[in-house]
Amino acid sequence: MATAPARLELIALPDFPLVEQGDDLAGLVMDGLARASLGWRDGDVVVLAQKIVSKAEGRLVDLATVEPSPEAQALAAQVLKDPRLVELVLRESRRVVRARPHVLIVEHRLGLIMANAGIDQSNVEAGGRELALLLPQDPDASAEGLRARLQAVSGAAVGVVINDSFGRPWRRGTTGVAIGAAGLPALVDRRGEPDLFGRALQVTMIGFADEIAATASLLMGQADEGRPVVLIRGLRWSAPPNPAAELMRPESEDLFR
Amino acid sequence: MATAPARLELIALPDFPLVEQGDDLAGLVMDGLARASLGWRDGDVVVLAQKIVSKAEGRLVDLATVEPSPEAQALAAQVLKDPRLVELVLRESRRVVRARPHVLIVEHRLGLIMANAGIDQSNVEAGGRELALLLPQDPDASAEGLRARLQAVSGAAVGVVINDSFGRPWRRGTTGVAIGAAGLPALVDRRGEPDLFGRALQVTMIGFADEIAATASLLMGQADEGRPVVLIRGLRWSAPPNPAAELMRPESEDLFR
Repeated sequence: MATAPARLELIALPDFPLVEQGDDLAGLVMDGLARASLGWRDGDVVVLAQKIVSKAEGRLVDLATVEPSPEAQALAAQVLKDPRLVELVLRESRRVVRARPHVLIVEHRLGLIMANAGIDQSNVEAGGRELALLLPQDPDASAEGLRARLQAVSGAAVGVVINDSFGRPWRRGTTGVAIGAAGLPALVDRRGEPDLFGRALQVTMIGFADEIAATASLLMGQADEGRPVVLIRGLRWSAPPNPAAELMRPESEDLFR
Repeated sequence: MATAPARLELIALPDFPLVEQGDDLAGLVMDGLARASLGWRDGDVVVLAQKIVSKAEGRLVDLATVEPSPEAQALAAQVLKDPRLVELVLRESRRVVRARPHVLIVEHRLGLIMANAGIDQSNVEAGGRELALLLPQDPDASAEGLRARLQAVSGAAVGVVINDSFGRPWRRGTTGVAIGAAGLPALVDRRGEPDLFGRALQVTMIGFADEIAATASLLMGQADEGRPVVLIRGLRWSAPPNPAAELMRPESEDLFR
């Protein structure tokens, strides 16, 4: 059982550089901790904004290179968006969930339900070109790769979460959500554990990595503000690690739809 | 604009007593900070678990006193739950969103979409009786009352959030959600602000109090674990305060349904 910690410390790594394709993110995180005069401890969790992972992995697309299909053109006319952007959204998606003027919500090929397949046109260095930034190809694999490198270099057992900001049904405002995780249980299953008074717990599955992602968002700011990496120190968990894919609810078991 | 902080500190108040009806919660929080040898600072945010607010406000109901209506009896047979509990759920709700065996999701009279109208049967001292705990009558008013008392006694400008754990559409696992807030902007509206590169931000409304609620959940643990109050130190905001009611999306503007 994951005993909750009594204290937590959160630190946004200072002066994190703008990330470009091919950059060694794990190396930049190691440098960032050194700049902040922080050593590594077992249980440290590093949260990285999706944008810098995508950029390092070369997921920027020049819209001038995108040829919209007839399907994308028709959908773009319906939602009043750039047909090239809509083409990218469709390539990244399994299905369209909602399409209305200025609204295009899809099921991303990863299973995430999100606006515009998570494709971002803000805070991307353009240099005259019109660029779009896709989600990482496999964010859980990205997180695991970063975790393995950080652990190899630091010697500490660390967790890694990749977060993004999502809108939500029924609630206004975005919150941070985990799209990738490694080294920690993204989903904690406490079914069958007793509560303080010996009864079975009613709340039994906890979106641990989503709570971590939301926490880090408080420090990152929503325009990045140059703070795309946050260290969380003091978390504890005893459940075995599982990836952020575990947080995606299969449609068949979704009680809210 | 709310500039994100570079560091945050989170502290679960130690040895918080079990709360009973009529207890002076603000006084207990003051005592808790003193026990932790913490003074107050402007910008401190206190997050309280819904359960202790409900208990202090006398929202415990003895199920033996509840007479289920014919409607509640029929619904109880459908969802395979105690008809007295279902009666309480219906009294607390505007409408039933989903009803299946073992599942009863409603729109709470506050506007929250949630299982069982947020009524809790775990971690409630029974003493032989079967008790159910309802949400506070008006959680934003509860938060404002606590905020005003804490500020009057401490002299510091503090924020208060009341959190609960919610299941979510499309995502597995619960996360902390703000059902009450005071002294801070529950919803931050950044529409029109430029990003790092001068373009309009794409993400423009932030569920600030929900991110705070999720953060505190990491320390509270889901079975309370005797840690129902968390102090968050270091947050900053410049937007004017607004209540958690702002986080409820009117059905008419819900793009996800």
